[in-house]
Amino acid sequence: MKSKVRGPIIDTVAVVGTGVIGRSWVRVFAQAGCNARIYDSDPQQTQKALRWLEQDLRLDRKEGLIGAKAAAAVRGRVTAYTNLGEAVNGAGYVQESGPEQLTAKQAVLGALDRIAASRTILASSTSGIDMNEIVGKLPGAHRCVVAHPINPPHVIPVVEVLAGQNVDLSVVSRTCAFLSSVGQKPVVMKSYIAGFLLNRMQAALVREAIQLVERGVADVDAVDTTIREGLGLRWALMGPFGVADTNADGGVREYYTRFRDSYIEFMNDLASTPSFDDGMIERLALGTDAMIGKTKRAKIRRWRDRTIRRIRALKDKDPQPWG
Amino acid sequence: MKSKVRGPIIDTVAVVGTGVIGRSWVRVFAQAGCNARIYDSDPQQTQKALRWLEQDLRLDRKEGLIGAKAAAAVRGRVTAYTNLGEAVNGAGYVQESGPEQLTAKQAVLGALDRIAASRTILASSTSGIDMNEIVGKLPGAHRCVVAHPINPPHVIPVVEVLAGQNVDLSVVSRTCAFLSSVGQKPVVMKSYIAGFLLNRMQAALVREAIQLVERGVADVDAVDTTIREGLGLRWALMGPFGVADTNADGGVREYYTRFRDSYIEFMNDLASTPSFDDGMIERLALGTDAMIGKTKRAKIRRWRDRTIRRIRALKDKDPQPWG
Repeated sequence: MKSKVRGPIIDTVAVVGTGVIGRSWVRVFAQAGCNARIYDSDPQQTQKALRWLEQDLRLDRKEGLIGAKAAAAVRGRVTAYTNLGEAVNGAGYVQESGPEQLTAKQAVLGALDRIAASRTILASSTSGIDMNEIVGKLPGAHRCVVAHPINPPHVIPVVEVLAGQNVDLSVVSRTCAFLSSVGQKPVVMKSYIAGFLLNRMQAALVREAIQLVERGVADVDAVDTTIREGLGLRWALMGPFGVADTNADGGVREYYTRFRDSYIEFMNDLASTPSFDDGMIERLALGTDAMIGKTKRAKIRRWRDRTIRRIRALKDKDPQPWG
Repeated sequence: MKSKVRGPIIDTVAVVGTGVIGRSWVRVFAQAGCNARIYDSDPQQTQKALRWLEQDLRLDRKEGLIGAKAAAAVRGRVTAYTNLGEAVNGAGYVQESGPEQLTAKQAVLGALDRIAASRTILASSTSGIDMNEIVGKLPGAHRCVVAHPINPPHVIPVVEVLAGQNVDLSVVSRTCAFLSSVGQKPVVMKSYIAGFLLNRMQAALVREAIQLVERGVADVDAVDTTIREGLGLRWALMGPFGVADTNADGGVREYYTRFRDSYIEFMNDLASTPSFDDGMIERLALGTDAMIGKTKRAKIRRWRDRTIRRIRALKDKDPQPWG
């Protein structure tokens, strides 16, 4: 899944659907050097996405994350279209980012399959729908894949790639190679599972975090501090298996063997699904309010995004010594 | 739990037990400016810890993480003792870091309670024993707390603080203030729970990660990449509640309300405790071997530790905008 980024291996891409996810994809592609065509069935959405892009580039310049020339070049590579056929004509890769509804996805992928050139990869940003359900009966099902980004993809690089059963496997490998070439980190799912990889692992941790607060063991701030000053610092660098492997001189084998009983004990005692009733949500929200205070959410998001990008720059400069 | 670090609020501390955890505590305290006395019932352990400290400081100098003068000053603040009474005489804080066995902890805390001055805080590094079991019957139970670090504490700052039922609450707040003053991030547990906070949340995520590999949905590398290029980048900056709060304009309330049904669906489908039998461990280990290749574990650990410290430096320079 790793490759030296030498620029995109597909020159021209189209982003169809330009809401919060689509506009961030536009930035990924344009920043990596692609000609990025954008289209939305609502032309006002397209204009909104362009304004967001300009505003976001301005903020990045202010924070020293991008130079003036590079920012202008990114903007210059983006072109808005009001006609879907023109937008995808000549594009080697299309990133569908419309509403998260099966019928809407089916309609858009169906239309794209009719008008896009036969070699064009059709990728969907769906966060949870099985590709077989979206494109099962399309003539071009072989060139359709899920490429589910984490919001926002211009900040968080991982992309979950899932193919339907009728896919041409070379389409999966070309998709991964292309995503790597624009700086993303594709991971391949070998079969459909509800929530895909990231949201499931997140839900597993969130469930236990909620239990710790609901049982009164710790408050919201203590739970969050445990993650951001503890587990999160490791996990920004290595996943659970890499962490286990470095935690014992004999690696994963020794670690899981030695701590087998502890793991089984903790795991048998982990939370079951909480109620998510209004009272529970309100208690968690009050705890979060107490932690955050009067700090504006927009300010926290900017800090989060620029700091994640700086962490990524650290990792680019001194990369993981394996792989 | 936050404070501007202006140097330690307790001058002289003792670390009792100088294995992997104890020696790292020595570095935390000495680097923050404390006089750090060290004692181990096996004097060879004490010498080994000193050699580790010198070696670790040398590696840090090589990697540009510390200057020559600062490194010499850290070493200069550490003194080895062969007599427990002398080691703790005049120490305002003692960090017990002996073997993780109830009877051993009871013996050491009992001895410390007999010889340490009445105002001295006695903290135990235990990773899982209830403080009531260790010090329940001691005359000085009121000044004993769990201060469980994450390995190694000179790299990972969070410390789980848990008091027994007979504690003087001012001891908890003084412990937290002291730990903050040496650059750690204390979190208070309000009651005992098996595994404490961090190991439980880790187990919750690990359980699901293992299931994803065991069910054949993704390989070890894909699961690890999902964390280190996805969730981990966020979690190095914000815990699960902070993340939820920034994921919707209406904060935690809107986020959990909007995604309530998805969370319940994923959570109801999460893994149960896996077998941890030898076959399972071997499959995970083979996947990890494939990911890591021939890279030396020691090299990965150095990279991990220096990169975590650089991430912490980023966060110190541009701190979270709340709190």
